[in-house]
Amino acid sequence: MTTRRTPTGAAVLQPDVTYAITEAVIDELADHGFGRLSMEAVSKRAGVGKSALYRRWRSKDEMIGAVIAEFSLARAVDPDTGSLRGDIRATLEALYGWIAHPRFSRIFPGLIAEARQNPAMAEFAREAIGGPRRAINRAVFTRAIERGEIPADTDIEMALDMGAGIVYWRLIVRGIPAEEGYLDQVTDLVVRALRA
Amino acid sequence: MTTRRTPTGAAVLQPDVTYAITEAVIDELADHGFGRLSMEAVSKRAGVGKSALYRRWRSKDEMIGAVIAEFSLARAVDPDTGSLRGDIRATLEALYGWIAHPRFSRIFPGLIAEARQNPAMAEFAREAIGGPRRAINRAVFTRAIERGEIPADTDIEMALDMGAGIVYWRLIVRGIPAEEGYLDQVTDLVVRALRA
Repeated sequence: MTTRRTPTGAAVLQPDVTYAITEAVIDELADHGFGRLSMEAVSKRAGVGKSALYRRWRSKDEMIGAVIAEFSLARAVDPDTGSLRGDIRATLEALYGWIAHPRFSRIFPGLIAEARQNPAMAEFAREAIGGPRRAINRAVFTRAIERGEIPADTDIEMALDMGAGIVYWRLIVRGIPAEEGYLDQVTDLVVRALRA
Repeated sequence: MTTRRTPTGAAVLQPDVTYAITEAVIDELADHGFGRLSMEAVSKRAGVGKSALYRRWRSKDEMIGAVIAEFSLARAVDPDTGSLRGDIRATLEALYGWIAHPRFSRIFPGLIAEARQNPAMAEFAREAIGGPRRAINRAVFTRAIERGEIPADTDIEMALDMGAGIVYWRLIVRGIPAEEGYLDQVTDLVVRALRA
């Protein structure tokens, strides 16, 4: 065996091809919305054959799901700055980079609309995106409880909804861009609401 | 002239026909989503001719816009209960009846997705739905400031985003139904955040 030998066969997936495809899926979803994405268009945009797509995912839905979940989880952070305020500020910054991302901000609302019509999509969004993201962000509040910054009976689920909901409603539902200092103001509001 | 005489001509629109059409538009949007609604399907569902639709609205987009705006504004209230807590609780109840409405909860996410792709739709949503609704709800906070319940420099726009955002994120984005007492808990959180 020589280290020069390149492995061959179906198990070998080139990372740069995967990256090109992932970017193409996000571009296509952002440009044409959910439900109008075709494997044809993705392979063309990525500059690869359709077989490169099917080597990675069994179906279009599986591909879309995997790409969106990976994009979403890569933007969830557990900052552990030492204070509730610091943690919430950092979490909101990451949330903003996810929700207000130039391309993803045109994809996510379509995912939610689709999920309202399609229970399988709703389940996927909860289990592969919302669930894991919340598991990461929950640590912010359990640490704040341990430090005595917020009451032990703090409703952590509602605390998680608060930051995300305020930012989503303003930026996406209303479509009003954030001005300088916006995330600091949201941080203040959330901290104030949680401290007894 | 006799009071018995019924006026005739294009200006006469029977309210029961308008009601039937309005219900049909909401049913069609909830069942098939945005962009897939046809005048044909609406007229069939309402049991009227297509001419009845065009006598009321010049185009499909105008019809959809008018129906959604009317539905949304009919569910905005200014309760004036005498306290911030009472006002917020009543406002959230009305908001819930709008956002979580069995049919409208399947329409609104599609409107937001459409608005992200279509600037004309975004402008319509802001000017015909969001703007007028917020104008009504703003009074809750200006009265609370006058009563001295919250500081004079309260960020009313953020206060408006808070209740709506929390409820929307939980019920629509996450798709988790409200349990008993949920709106009371949101009310507590909002009141706590706004009191200095």
